[in-house]
Amino acid sequence: MTPVDTSAVADLLGVLAYAELTAFDRLAEDARMAPTLEGRAALARMAAAEIGHHVRLIERMTELGVDPAETMAPFVSALDTFHESTRPNTWLEGLVKAYVGDGLATDFYREIAAFLPDPDRALVLDVLADTGHAGFAVREVRAAIAADRRVGGRLALWGRRLVGEAITQSQAVIAEHDRLAELIMAGVGDVGGVARLIERITDAHTARMKALGLRG
Amino acid sequence: MTPVDTSAVADLLGVLAYAELTAFDRLAEDARMAPTLEGRAALARMAAAEIGHHVRLIERMTELGVDPAETMAPFVSALDTFHESTRPNTWLEGLVKAYVGDGLATDFYREIAAFLPDPDRALVLDVLADTGHAGFAVREVRAAIAADRRVGGRLALWGRRLVGEAITQSQAVIAEHDRLAELIMAGVGDVGGVARLIERITDAHTARMKALGLRG
Repeated sequence: MTPVDTSAVADLLGVLAYAELTAFDRLAEDARMAPTLEGRAALARMAAAEIGHHVRLIERMTELGVDPAETMAPFVSALDTFHESTRPNTWLEGLVKAYVGDGLATDFYREIAAFLPDPDRALVLDVLADTGHAGFAVREVRAAIAADRRVGGRLALWGRRLVGEAITQSQAVIAEHDRLAELIMAGVGDVGGVARLIERITDAHTARMKALGLRG
Repeated sequence: MTPVDTSAVADLLGVLAYAELTAFDRLAEDARMAPTLEGRAALARMAAAEIGHHVRLIERMTELGVDPAETMAPFVSALDTFHESTRPNTWLEGLVKAYVGDGLATDFYREIAAFLPDPDRALVLDVLADTGHAGFAVREVRAAIAADRRVGGRLALWGRRLVGEAITQSQAVIAEHDRLAELIMAGVGDVGGVARLIERITDAHTARMKALGLRG
């Protein structure tokens, strides 16, 4: 394996750190649509976990001698665009986004982390492992579908829109960041490797939709 | 000391748990006014800490066999009113509110926690001790005042408004909740005790305003 460019490592930490910060923001906002205090707290806890990860990534960037704000800046627009174009209109859409969006992001970053040298690989994998609290979203969505089957059809459409926007914005980020693109290409080996990576992410997405009781 | 009514303990845990949940909400919202990613993350970290406390209080209520949502419900209106009437219009107002508002709330709950039996006293004190991250607010506000002295005058007015609204809403909560009022009166002993409690809280507020470079 070719040695990894440390700027590419910084790029990955930067995009992930901003992703966590903006996920915090949106989860905190979506928590306000909760019909119960329990639901509001559940989404707020997911948001709080994201900030914990953000802090660890910032600390690592500082250790590497890169400026966190400068490193995150190139990724602000793509991630903000993703969230603007997938703003939930209902509490249930918010829950599906929290579960499915978080899952997609986790899978994507985990695939790329595999190409990093340690300690950054370990840090990213550890940060990604500690999301949790998703059980609440699964229970609530399944209960809502059980109560009204039409809800399932609408949320399945919403899930497909989420994955579409996520792919669009990921492609935009990679196309604009040569070092990240090189990191991924060096890691997967060839175009066939890219296809397999996308397939793994798509399969996991379908499994998550199924867990919610939705057709992927 | 008269034995403490367990319903009064539950009331205190309830008001504090909802206070933490709503503080999370407002800090997360105010974080969006940050002019830098560092500032946004700093307020988001304060928000995340509140949710950690909220969770611990909920767990304790569950242990005591009281329903957390029901126990919090009577306090929702007063706390929401406080936040509605003290919605920051600028990033600096948000920082002053985060620092001064959090400090006032902490002092108030800490005074009342002293009247609780353990383990609830220890739990509440522990939850209140672990706020932190306030150094950022102090640095930012002092720097802004140093750059433009008129800022100090406006923020001092804002600080006085915060303390005024906090007192108004605290009085409303206590007036409407006999068990809490009895808990406090039993703890402080007499009207002189109430006056001393208010004086301690006011003094600490003035010290915090001074730390920000503001006249209390």
